[in-house]
Amino acid sequence: MTPHSHAQRAPAFAATPWTAGLHELRRNPLLWLLVCVPAVFVGRALAPDAHTLLFILSVLAIVPLAALLSHATESVAAKTGDAVGGLLNATLGNLTELVIALTALRAGQYLLVKASIAGVIVTNSLFMLGASFLLGGLTYHVQEFNRSGARLQASLLFLATIALLVPSAVSVADAGAAAEFTQQLSLGLSGLLIVAYGLGLLFSLKTHRELFASSAHADHDEEPWPLRIALATLAVVTVLVALVSEVFVESVQHAATTFGMSPAFVGFIVVALVGGAAEMTAAFSGARKNRMDLSVGIALGSAAQIALFVAPVLVLLSYVIGPTPMDLRFWMGAVVMMLVAALTAALVTNGGRSTWFVGVLLLTVYLVFAMTLYLLPPQTR
Amino acid sequence: MTPHSHAQRAPAFAATPWTAGLHELRRNPLLWLLVCVPAVFVGRALAPDAHTLLFILSVLAIVPLAALLSHATESVAAKTGDAVGGLLNATLGNLTELVIALTALRAGQYLLVKASIAGVIVTNSLFMLGASFLLGGLTYHVQEFNRSGARLQASLLFLATIALLVPSAVSVADAGAAAEFTQQLSLGLSGLLIVAYGLGLLFSLKTHRELFASSAHADHDEEPWPLRIALATLAVVTVLVALVSEVFVESVQHAATTFGMSPAFVGFIVVALVGGAAEMTAAFSGARKNRMDLSVGIALGSAAQIALFVAPVLVLLSYVIGPTPMDLRFWMGAVVMMLVAALTAALVTNGGRSTWFVGVLLLTVYLVFAMTLYLLPPQTR
Amino acid sequence: MTPHSHAQRAPAFAATPWTAGLHELRRNPLLWLLVCVPAVFVGRALAPDAHTLLFILSVLAIVPLAALLSHATESVAAKTGDAVGGLLNATLGNLTELVIALTALRAGQYLLVKASIAGVIVTNSLFMLGASFLLGGLTYHVQEFNRSGARLQASLLFLATIALLVPSAVSVADAGAAAEFTQQLSLGLSGLLIVAYGLGLLFSLKTHRELFASSAHADHDEEPWPLRIALATLAVVTVLVALVSEVFVESVQHAATTFGMSPAFVGFIVVALVGGAAEMTAAFSGARKNRMDLSVGIALGSAAQIALFVAPVLVLLSYVIGPTPMDLRFWMGAVVMMLVAALTAALVTNGGRSTWFVGVLLLTVYLVFAMTLYLLPPQTR
Repeated sequence: MTPHSHAQRAPAFAATPWTAGLHELRRNPLLWLLVCVPAVFVGRALAPDAHTLLFILSVLAIVPLAALLSHATESVAAKTGDAVGGLLNATLGNLTELVIALTALRAGQYLLVKASIAGVIVTNSLFMLGASFLLGGLTYHVQEFNRSGARLQASLLFLATIALLVPSAVSVADAGAAAEFTQQLSLGLSGLLIVAYGLGLLFSLKTHRELFASSAHADHDEEPWPLRIALATLAVVTVLVALVSEVFVESVQHAATTFGMSPAFVGFIVVALVGGAAEMTAAFSGARKNRMDLSVGIALGSAAQIALFVAPVLVLLSYVIGPTPMDLRFWMGAVVMMLVAALTAALVTNGGRSTWFVGVLLLTVYLVFAMTLYLLPPQTR
Repeated sequence: MTPHSHAQRAPAFAATPWTAGLHELRRNPLLWLLVCVPAVFVGRALAPDAHTLLFILSVLAIVPLAALLSHATESVAAKTGDAVGGLLNATLGNLTELVIALTALRAGQYLLVKASIAGVIVTNSLFMLGASFLLGGLTYHVQEFNRSGARLQASLLFLATIALLVPSAVSVADAGAAAEFTQQLSLGLSGLLIVAYGLGLLFSLKTHRELFASSAHADHDEEPWPLRIALATLAVVTVLVALVSEVFVESVQHAATTFGMSPAFVGFIVVALVGGAAEMTAAFSGARKNRMDLSVGIALGSAAQIALFVAPVLVLLSYVIGPTPMDLRFWMGAVVMMLVAALTAALVTNGGRSTWFVGVLLLTVYLVFAMTLYLLPPQTR
Repeated sequence: MTPHSHAQRAPAFAATPWTAGLHELRRNPLLWLLVCVPAVFVGRALAPDAHTLLFILSVLAIVPLAALLSHATESVAAKTGDAVGGLLNATLGNLTELVIALTALRAGQYLLVKASIAGVIVTNSLFMLGASFLLGGLTYHVQEFNRSGARLQASLLFLATIALLVPSAVSVADAGAAAEFTQQLSLGLSGLLIVAYGLGLLFSLKTHRELFASSAHADHDEEPWPLRIALATLAVVTVLVALVSEVFVESVQHAATTFGMSPAFVGFIVVALVGGAAEMTAAFSGARKNRMDLSVGIALGSAAQIALFVAPVLVLLSYVIGPTPMDLRFWMGAVVMMLVAALTAALVTNGGRSTWFVGVLLLTVYLVFAMTLYLLPPQTR
């Protein structure tokens, strides 16, 4: 792309927050859901016990906020040049999930935190990838994507998942293992994962950026916002997500009971789908345009980032903002699901080709997992 | 193949059931075993307590019946055109295993039913594939097969196995999980699997049939029978298999004790080998003719069909014909073996090449499993 | 390589043991550590209770002895022609590990024996492969290696690991399984594995040697020693390794306590790193010369040999030289680590390309495992 072609795609309207906002609303009907954001706060003030209503409103409010965060991050990234921009994009890519998890962490709801970590990995590897394969396959007979890049990202995800699961595996193998041991192990592991994540950024943004070229996060069909607006949006929307997350975390237990959902189901499925809505939109749009590299890159990259970056950051922050330190011991069912998801992603992306039926199979496994979590008797977790 | 060459291969004898039968007997020495079919019924009438004899006779009788069923199905398929024929072939491909399992289901022998489901998956992925690689490799230095097709079928088998194993994994993870929960989960899962199987037929027979072209079930060197004879054979032989299966299921427990075999071994190894004899003949003959696509297609396709179609159908039918509903909770050893088998099949078919030693390795793993099941103390299952 | 070029690389010095030894010392600084060998024996005579000192000395003494063993084996192999030489190389490739394990076996320290079997598999698949990828990747942007060969060796390793793990898996699945059953199973399994290993030699040295051509064990840049010297070295050094191993095995428990290491850590990490030092030197040197085939071949081949040959030989020998028969039941954590290592090796070598960051990821998983074993409370194993 030449600088010239770039210039032609520059916004034709005067770039004030107001007109930019209006323009976005026209382009992205999802943003009409923003009306739920004030509704959450009004609802909480007027009817603090209407947990089910507050739960639904907060879920609906997070979706457009996540979309705004995602676009703001990409706009900042587009303005700050490749290296810093890539870093921003990679680091803030799961900002919504991180903010929700931090709110749950502060409230000491460690089961919800862990369920959402596991849920994002499983949802990205099975649902996001599967739906991308299916949607793309409805239009294109066979879709090809960059095998080397996909293999690399799938290996990354697999190894990150393995590392994340060691404390759970060990505490199952040795039922007698002291909690203190699991805690030490989780802390050391978090340090190692963050170092590996840092080296991974060096790899993907600097030494081997060509391998990731076509799977860059940004969907370049969207206009980047001016830097000023993007930064302001980033700040304001992050605060809004944090505030809405608080209502979400407060209401989630009650709502789960009302809907007959197990807490595992809420953390695993609802948080992952809600927090990842923006990324899913991008992945599905890539699939429909036969840019499967983009879809695979978003799905696997975001899942790997949760394992390598978000999970260890949450462990470290639990020492600062949580009531007690959090460890990385997952419920065994979640361990199995994460492993299966990572392994499946590696298997199906290995050949560099996709068809609609592979998507159906991935979605079937996801539905089986979701059904299992839904039916799970509440007392088991 | 031109229509002309087809005509040249038309049967030269008048196609009556009698001459067709004689022709088959000459071509296929296995069919001499048909003499065991009346022997089973005579034996049962004269010596109902000679369980060991009845067991051996029923095993020997099922082998040629399975071969006849297989050929009749293919003949009907050949006459009814590609789409319906493919459907028939795919759906009736494991008819023998289905009938044996239905007999065990009606008798309430759920351990035997589950052991034979697991056994077919393991036997096809390890023994049938391994022996095909070994037999083919004795003649050909390196055999190549269609990588894309094999990968697709291996992914299909892997995902189907994963889905099938979720109830077992969950009930291990939560020892406290109620039986009712496992039952609900098995029922829901069966529905999902059958839908996925239906979509898989749409995929392999309609939208992407070219991917499966060379691995079609039918071995086209055999003459198809006339439709009338094929349909009659299908009906008569299915009834015979059902009758013989009844003797088999009655005698299996006693015979196992006599031979010092655990029930797990009988279900896992004997049922799978006996029921799959016809398919194995086809797979091995494909391997020896360097048509490895055919062998891989039969081995993996049949295993996937058990997981996606036969197992859920048995769960649903257990509500109608079984003494109590059957769930999909497997013994942990069987779970591990199924997973290993599916994963191994994915790994070794991934490169699209086979040599004799890969066959040896697959057979070694199969022998290790068989030895384990044989040595297993009876009380453990 | 022509005979002529071979001749040019013939040693220029008179081949006496003395000059050969001096030449080696100049080329390989590791050999200066040989001074630790007499130090071990002197130390044991003078201060039999200085366990920590004796432990360190014996570890340092084994490293150069392993290097000498390795070079002597290769020299004999080079002189005896391809078939016998390949056999020798393959069979004696893990001689150091075998001698250490035999010493521990005679002392009845079965936990140490099993930990070192598991440790060599994990260390080769994760550390040796990972460090090779990292070291090679620091110089070369992307390194390619023979995909077919790597896939074959990774499948071999995976299937061997699976077979090795069956007794552990079964005894977990059936907590009630008698020890006698596990013992029988381990014995039968050992027989099967040794047969498979023998067939594997036939495959790699005779029928399909071309697949392994570029991954031959010997690093042909080194001069082979004359046969006489090589045989003498082989005999003398094997005895020395055995003697030093005895001190090592005696002191390891005490030293572990002193350093705060769990016995699992010592067996798993220390024995594997010490015993494999010579192979690692060869693998790393191959990686730095962009001969990644060599590195992958050494790492995976040696791991597979431990599973297929060393482990079953130890089981069989335990009936002769051990205080009681040894079975193949591993601690569950070790089972998980071996499986993960074998699966990971299969995934990352599957594409036939490596970069530095894949090495970092493998090393991260290895570090996580090592950290887990280090932190493990002593009573758990």
